[in-house]
Amino acid sequence: MAQSQTQINSSYRHYRAVNILKGLAANPYDLTVEGSLSPERIERFSAHAGEFRLLFGTERVTDDVLHALRELSHEAKLLEKMEAMQRGDVINKIEEFPSENRKVLHTAMRDFFLHPNPGKEASKAAEAEKKECEKLKDFMSALEGKETYTDLIQIGIGGSDLGPRALYIALKAFQKPNRNVHFISNVDPDDAAAVLRNVDPKRTLVVVVSKSGSTLETLTNEEIARKYFEEAGCSSAKHFISVTSKGSPMDNKERYLASFYMEDYIGGRYSATSMVGGVMLAFALGYDQFLNILKGAHEMDRIALNPNMMENLPMLSAMLGIWNRNFLHHQTLAVLPYSQALLRFPAHLQQCNMESNGKRIDKEGHPVDFDTGPIVWGEPGTNGQHSFYQLIHQGTNVVPIEFIGFRENQYGEDRNVQETTSQEKLLSNLLAQSIALAKGQRSDNPNKVFPGNRPNRILLAKRLDPFTLGGLLSYYENTIAFQGFCWNINSFDQEGVQLGKVLANKILSQFSAKRTGKRAERFPEAEAMLHQIDKL
Amino acid sequence: MAQSQTQINSSYRHYRAVNILKGLAANPYDLTVEGSLSPERIERFSAHAGEFRLLFGTERVTDDVLHALRELSHEAKLLEKMEAMQRGDVINKIEEFPSENRKVLHTAMRDFFLHPNPGKEASKAAEAEKKECEKLKDFMSALEGKETYTDLIQIGIGGSDLGPRALYIALKAFQKPNRNVHFISNVDPDDAAAVLRNVDPKRTLVVVVSKSGSTLETLTNEEIARKYFEEAGCSSAKHFISVTSKGSPMDNKERYLASFYMEDYIGGRYSATSMVGGVMLAFALGYDQFLNILKGAHEMDRIALNPNMMENLPMLSAMLGIWNRNFLHHQTLAVLPYSQALLRFPAHLQQCNMESNGKRIDKEGHPVDFDTGPIVWGEPGTNGQHSFYQLIHQGTNVVPIEFIGFRENQYGEDRNVQETTSQEKLLSNLLAQSIALAKGQRSDNPNKVFPGNRPNRILLAKRLDPFTLGGLLSYYENTIAFQGFCWNINSFDQEGVQLGKVLANKILSQFSAKRTGKRAERFPEAEAMLHQIDKL
Repeated sequence: MAQSQTQINSSYRHYRAVNILKGLAANPYDLTVEGSLSPERIERFSAHAGEFRLLFGTERVTDDVLHALRELSHEAKLLEKMEAMQRGDVINKIEEFPSENRKVLHTAMRDFFLHPNPGKEASKAAEAEKKECEKLKDFMSALEGKETYTDLIQIGIGGSDLGPRALYIALKAFQKPNRNVHFISNVDPDDAAAVLRNVDPKRTLVVVVSKSGSTLETLTNEEIARKYFEEAGCSSAKHFISVTSKGSPMDNKERYLASFYMEDYIGGRYSATSMVGGVMLAFALGYDQFLNILKGAHEMDRIALNPNMMENLPMLSAMLGIWNRNFLHHQTLAVLPYSQALLRFPAHLQQCNMESNGKRIDKEGHPVDFDTGPIVWGEPGTNGQHSFYQLIHQGTNVVPIEFIGFRENQYGEDRNVQETTSQEKLLSNLLAQSIALAKGQRSDNPNKVFPGNRPNRILLAKRLDPFTLGGLLSYYENTIAFQGFCWNINSFDQEGVQLGKVLANKILSQFSAKRTGKRAERFPEAEAMLHQIDKL
Repeated sequence: MAQSQTQINSSYRHYRAVNILKGLAANPYDLTVEGSLSPERIERFSAHAGEFRLLFGTERVTDDVLHALRELSHEAKLLEKMEAMQRGDVINKIEEFPSENRKVLHTAMRDFFLHPNPGKEASKAAEAEKKECEKLKDFMSALEGKETYTDLIQIGIGGSDLGPRALYIALKAFQKPNRNVHFISNVDPDDAAAVLRNVDPKRTLVVVVSKSGSTLETLTNEEIARKYFEEAGCSSAKHFISVTSKGSPMDNKERYLASFYMEDYIGGRYSATSMVGGVMLAFALGYDQFLNILKGAHEMDRIALNPNMMENLPMLSAMLGIWNRNFLHHQTLAVLPYSQALLRFPAHLQQCNMESNGKRIDKEGHPVDFDTGPIVWGEPGTNGQHSFYQLIHQGTNVVPIEFIGFRENQYGEDRNVQETTSQEKLLSNLLAQSIALAKGQRSDNPNKVFPGNRPNRILLAKRLDPFTLGGLLSYYENTIAFQGFCWNINSFDQEGVQLGKVLANKILSQFSAKRTGKRAERFPEAEAMLHQIDKL
């Protein structure tokens, strides 16, 4: 399709490096050839920054591929765009069409003013967040004195649930005694029922999280929880806390014990390090541990500004992902943490990645003619080895993988069984999988043939503590942002969730019409489906 | 490649219906055309059997496609193969190559002798299981009297973990008071540490599950748990129960309070309704509720023998999946339950499907030249709507979906908020998503364009209780089996997990060598990776 010169320059498929990479992809590096995965390759194709090391010798890349990926990162101005994001430019927009037109400043939530001049907007955002943090600190100190509250329920959905929940589960080893957290997210009434029956309202705080103060699921669950508390003789106004935008319907002193604020430049899926995760995490782990998460995330945000791709781990991971996605044409990405604590981390990444980059138009509003974000999924290893690994070794589609591993475990409790510790068994399995997927195996028995050449990389750190988890979170957030920058798409809106909401409201008005006697707009397809449900 | 006549006849791509379907796939039904998703279509493209209804008007199928799929099911002898499986033929094999050579008789685990002549082998298996059930009933009755035990830890991995865990979580609403279940699966030492610190050994039973009695992760975690119990002054022999093969190292009266048996014809991923799930479920829910799960599964096993595809829901679902996979060429399948209780059910299906059908050779040992099992993933709705649904509506790859919904909730607790109940909100969202994905939306704003034609179907039942959950489990097990039959692959082995195990043991012997002073075989790639880990 004909486009103006400016548009051509900004369009991914016209970058010079894209053509070079297409050529290189015709004959990608063959990891199954004897000697191709040499110790030298493993050492040379490893990068490190901060707490982390990334081993990518098991990707199907060569020096030429890395060179072209670096060139692509320059052509697509990845670093400049990351700087623009972190300093607070309005990058959440589509040119010439109505869009959110917002800054994207989750990185400012963890700015401790340790580094110079992030930009005026970012500094303002960081100042505002500092105030919320101070409020949070005071609130938590006041709780300390009383020790009244043993439980906290977080009510929220999407970004107000998945990220905070993943972080909480990941850091249970660091939980304070007598501080338990529960989550209600789904509008399924069983979700609230299952949680509420297991807490004592007198000793429970409820944090209700909605930026707009109008999320259907969250308001419904809040209402259910309030009635439950009132019926148990607890004034909900004394137990409920809101995390919301200043001035939203949930910013209401009469209904909440306290309110913590988030600004419109914090996207839900990037909000775990704002008050959205902060209140709950400070309750569960203590305020200082929450700060450690922020510090770890900040360190990785700084790494994302490093112009050297080999030291900028999120950029390197983004470009390896681009290679697998756009040039080797793989549709999915499995994130497989060898850590049971990261059980729900892939579900968070699934949201963060797929909601950000599952897009079909570029920032000028043109439909893209290349693939954008992959389908992201995953479960912890070694569990997955006894589950879906059959397919990733011998299935007919290739699944690129990012493994996550840690040198040490969290609890420091381990046993020697059959001459090795569990941690050694865990790491041995992780490395074995990476090598097996890359190299494959020849055999005269066709069922024992492993084709190999299944691209994967391993992200490693010393131990999953709050600081490292913050870094891990930021690593993925920034990887996703870099890929969106490269594709020239808007990674920060989510227009694709609107249509379903509109239709759901139409169906809901059919239900409420029965109750109120009002007439509802006809919706024949939905009525036909409801008729089927009535037969159950 | 040249093949003998017999091989050609058994090979999927040579079926007459395959060519017809290829032709039809060139121009699949367009759901985005005004009026194409009519109420009549929704009614006509709905099927029901037992407790379940399947709405598939939102798939891209026509009568011609259904006709050809039915023909394919005949050509591939799906029904005969299902009968052969259920009567106990040795179908777990690869012709002319060493293979497991086993019967596949998980359906016999839930045979109540209500129906005539399933076959001699199946009857023998059902008789054996009946004995285990009687043993289990007596064991549970003996516990009843004492009420000593409040907690049970299940130690197992893969099929001994994912299925049982998914069922337990799904049925928490039916749990007996003071009966809690915990799971240890991962060799990550933090998994055991996190669970053990939260139970009182005196009041806790431990069920250790391994068919072979030699699963590395499970033996390691058992050993860790035993030491923990002994250190707490509890004789592990009085608290530990084994579920294993007769005569395995875990069939040992001196080390276990009781042993329940599973036969070699029960594959791990199909074992949830055997003693693998049974002991834990009978403890948590009561023995009678466990039987209700079996009864529901048995009813669906019978439905899978119905020669009429439109009444054989597992076969219908299998063939719709084949259409999406092999003719519309979609690589993944999302299973999205609108039920929070089914939170971990997709993880179980991921195993069951991907380990069964993620295969690259057919039953004669020839590499296939078509796609086999898809990548299966999913999370409950409405949660997913606030997460990855952006990509499934507007991403560049199409994701076929099977939704699961229920007319009623589990706890029977619901509230009217803004004129509708939560259950009504849940169902409205489910139907809205199905319609939105199928129909899409036109708009002058490119960001509000939804391409539509995203194939999906909805499986519905009245309420998620033990009987219905049994049916749901069997529905998926049989759907997967039918697809494997159609592709002529062996869905019941898992040779693809072996290579990783072998390499992991090589790396482990490097670790143990350091401890014992023995020499270990060199493994240069792994050593290079370990050297990187040492730098952390």
